[in-house]
Amino acid sequence: MKVIQSTGNTTVKNWKKLQTRKGRNQQGKYLLEGWHLVREALTAGEKISEIMVTSTAFAQIDLQADLPQEAALFEISEEVAQKLSATPSPQGIFATVIIDENASLRPDQATGAWLFLDTVQDPGNVGTMVRTADAAGFAGVVLSHGSVDFYQPKLVRSMQGSQFHIQISQGDLSEWTAAFQANSYPVFGSELNEKARSYDKVGRHENFALVMGNEGNGLSSKMLQQTSLNLYIPLKGKAESLNVAVAAGIMMFALKA
Amino acid sequence: MKVIQSTGNTTVKNWKKLQTRKGRNQQGKYLLEGWHLVREALTAGEKISEIMVTSTAFAQIDLQADLPQEAALFEISEEVAQKLSATPSPQGIFATVIIDENASLRPDQATGAWLFLDTVQDPGNVGTMVRTADAAGFAGVVLSHGSVDFYQPKLVRSMQGSQFHIQISQGDLSEWTAAFQANSYPVFGSELNEKARSYDKVGRHENFALVMGNEGNGLSSKMLQQTSLNLYIPLKGKAESLNVAVAAGIMMFALKA
Repeated sequence: MKVIQSTGNTTVKNWKKLQTRKGRNQQGKYLLEGWHLVREALTAGEKISEIMVTSTAFAQIDLQADLPQEAALFEISEEVAQKLSATPSPQGIFATVIIDENASLRPDQATGAWLFLDTVQDPGNVGTMVRTADAAGFAGVVLSHGSVDFYQPKLVRSMQGSQFHIQISQGDLSEWTAAFQANSYPVFGSELNEKARSYDKVGRHENFALVMGNEGNGLSSKMLQQTSLNLYIPLKGKAESLNVAVAAGIMMFALKA
Repeated sequence: MKVIQSTGNTTVKNWKKLQTRKGRNQQGKYLLEGWHLVREALTAGEKISEIMVTSTAFAQIDLQADLPQEAALFEISEEVAQKLSATPSPQGIFATVIIDENASLRPDQATGAWLFLDTVQDPGNVGTMVRTADAAGFAGVVLSHGSVDFYQPKLVRSMQGSQFHIQISQGDLSEWTAAFQANSYPVFGSELNEKARSYDKVGRHENFALVMGNEGNGLSSKMLQQTSLNLYIPLKGKAESLNVAVAAGIMMFALKA
């Protein structure tokens, strides 16, 4: 086990760079923090590159269960843990996970219920929607290329490990929509438009996609035309709209068979 | 119109203090930022104490429609706007609104659908739930005393003006629950427990309350005993729970007649 005391260490600086998209792209991995997420990654058989623990956290490790052979183990100081952490009182355990782009399904292979996210920007919203898709029994989530990426730190926290339970993929939503329609799976858009169909009037489905749009602008007109049918949630009060993650949750639980 | 250029001005410091609970309690008002919220407050006839605008924003004001007679008007510099703002590029309009504790309904006067929040801590979640309650046609939201207060800046941003559309009140949830039950209105708890009743098996209601609990711990055992019936959302995937605002949204839209 290597020991790293200094926050100025090059390896620590490289871990810190995983908080940026550029760093993740260059190194091909992302950072997990905390017992819950690290254990979920291990249980799911993710490709773990490094595990970093403080001496306090090391005492709580089950060496057999918690350490895959291929992962490099580092003992880090409390200062290094503080530098890597997003919280004021870190649990003292981190891991880096290899991002495996080839693990993604091709659109024509997908079955089950899918959530498509069209240029959604807020990482907390995206992460919450992945978590909700998992809870609703969805097979996967596809993020359009113009959105954030799945491994942004706040997004990873919001997913709470759901990336290990369901498929997540970044791709071209037009291509995904066309592939679903070629398989006769409906693709439901969501629209703030009272002339659209009410979300609770289309029944429940096994194989389908639901598309949610950008927080401010909703779905692009291109997507609204490409979808099989556009749905809306009738609003009864004076609020002009719902938070996108709340709207997605209401629709996912209503549409999934 | 008074002009304030310096961020060191005492009046500016007092406005800045409204970002803290202590400041709001001492001054009895809270801060709004941006055209949307200030106009919503005016439309709703809120008691506005002060309106602060930059010269750029002042040029866009409709003097007749946007300025109530009783409000003091301040022209502020861009530096002052930056100091008061929560965003990197402020719109340059702010208002302080009197917090009127006496405007709250008594529990025995309440009718319609209500959301009770038991020690929910995250201001973004609380604000999103107020916005969702508005959209679902609820009459009001009651926050327990151990929660945040409604006028925390992030909470105000998340409500998006829904505090002007529905009742919001901070109170003793045991007292509210007892008052609803005395009127034969059901009070539904929410529980992560598969032995509870599924949320979509109790029909739709006109007069009722839904109680959501703390993000980490759920409802207190005291509340779970006091409620008329406890509901849960069956989870199909491997996620252990839903975000509290998403769960509240799913239940509110399913329960409200």
